Amino acid sequence: MRVHVALTPAEFSDAPLTGCVALAVDVLRATTASVAACDAGCRGLVPVPDAAAAEAWAARDGADTVLAGERGGEALAGFDLGNSPAEFTADRVGGRTVVLTTTNGTAAMLTAARAAAAGLAALTNVSAAARWALEQGRDVTILCAGDNGAFSLEDTVCAGLLVGRLANGSPGAALSEGAQAALGLGRHYGARLERLAVDSSWGRRLQRLGRDADLAWCLRTDVSLVVPVFLAGAFVPRRAGAPAAVGWESRA
Amino acid sequence: MRVHVALTPAEFSDAPLTGCVALAVDVLRATTASVAACDAGCRGLVPVPDAAAAEAWAARDGADTVLAGERGGEALAGFDLGNSPAEFTADRVGGRTVVLTTTNGTAAMLTAARAAAAGLAALTNVSAAARWALEQGRDVTILCAGDNGAFSLEDTVCAGLLVGRLANGSPGAALSEGAQAALGLGRHYGARLERLAVDSSWGRRLQRLGRDADLAWCLRTDVSLVVPVFLAGAFVPRRAGAPAAVGWESRA
Repeated sequence: MRVHVALTPAEFSDAPLTGCVALAVDVLRATTASVAACDAGCRGLVPVPDAAAAEAWAARDGADTVLAGERGGEALAGFDLGNSPAEFTADRVGGRTVVLTTTNGTAAMLTAARAAAAGLAALTNVSAAARWALEQGRDVTILCAGDNGAFSLEDTVCAGLLVGRLANGSPGAALSEGAQAALGLGRHYGARLERLAVDSSWGRRLQRLGRDADLAWCLRTDVSLVVPVFLAGAFVPRRAGAPAAVGWESRA
Repeated sequence: MRVHVALTPAEFSDAPLTGCVALAVDVLRATTASVAACDAGCRGLVPVPDAAAAEAWAARDGADTVLAGERGGEALAGFDLGNSPAEFTADRVGGRTVVLTTTNGTAAMLTAARAAAAGLAALTNVSAAARWALEQGRDVTILCAGDNGAFSLEDTVCAGLLVGRLANGSPGAALSEGAQAALGLGRHYGARLERLAVDSSWGRRLQRLGRDADLAWCLRTDVSLVVPVFLAGAFVPRRAGAPAAVGWESRA
């Protein structure tokens, strides 16, 4: 098995997708919010590139649709929800389709959807996402959503934790340079994830916006066993097996 | 020999300095500009925390002093020079002392100055800086200036290139987790430094400010053999030996 990490959106075009399983990562906050929406019982998540596409979807699909998204960390006018994982509660999204557009996350989600199999990963479901990816029996490409096109520390750390779990689950896996770079940052930050709130540019921006509760939500590992998996146009909830008894960080 | 990298200013307080040699890194642009100033024949560089401290220095030291600095990438009002390496020409800084204050760089420079020996490293002098550090025969601590307190991709990549050269020059060197994380990013970006202009948040900001020429200047390796070395209150030019025939990137 080969494991590759595209560290920024500029690297998406070179990333292997054909025949691969892809995992999109946007820790702050699109994929974390997507995991929360799936845990809250949403039917599925549809990533769209902009607000106009989201509104067109809602006009067609009506009452079953919840519009969610942000630009620059702020909720979009006229949308039902922003991009805060705590907003995705059962009474708001249960049984409904969430149409999502965000600054960084949706581009990674749409790129992942072009692979043979695609899932969404965050710190909150990192072990479940790695297990699901291993179950696909394919090479794995991890797409870091980044920060307005640039490198994002927290996405790379999450990618590194995924790489560590994939390498543990598939000894002899070949890691690309991007995967090795992410692995190193995953090892450094894995045991001190709270530092990401200080060391990440986007984390600092969320703090300035008063979104400390979102940061606390997003910077936890393995609180969910659900992986949103792409199927017929939407990411739908898929439950992975039980987590390993010991986390990767403590063994590495 | 032990090699440690403090990836962000938040990690400076835990970084070993006593008895160590420290290298401060601020690729965009303070340490690159410092190397340029030394190549242009300045007498020395004095990092100060803010504009008031710089002006106080100038009031005391007069004609021999050049005030240089920026905040948020823009030159400071009333200063002789900004933070663009191309500004540090022989006719402006030759034989004079440069008093420097910048958004990120000066804090790393002032922290480095507390070590047993301190130098400034950039991509432009990365091999010379590593050789000078090896010559000191001490553990090495590399301080990444960061991006407004957060993680900076280009500083970490430069730190990774330093780590690679130090490990090559001192087989068996013990690398901290931070050093290993930097090494991974150095390996990934070492052969494609031009990508840092796109993948780095600060690089993108400099592009928006029209400073493409600065980016091109800063994202080159080994165009200088000079290391600014801390001595009696200032970083003064020190010339290291000839560069190795083959770069680290091509051997890694």
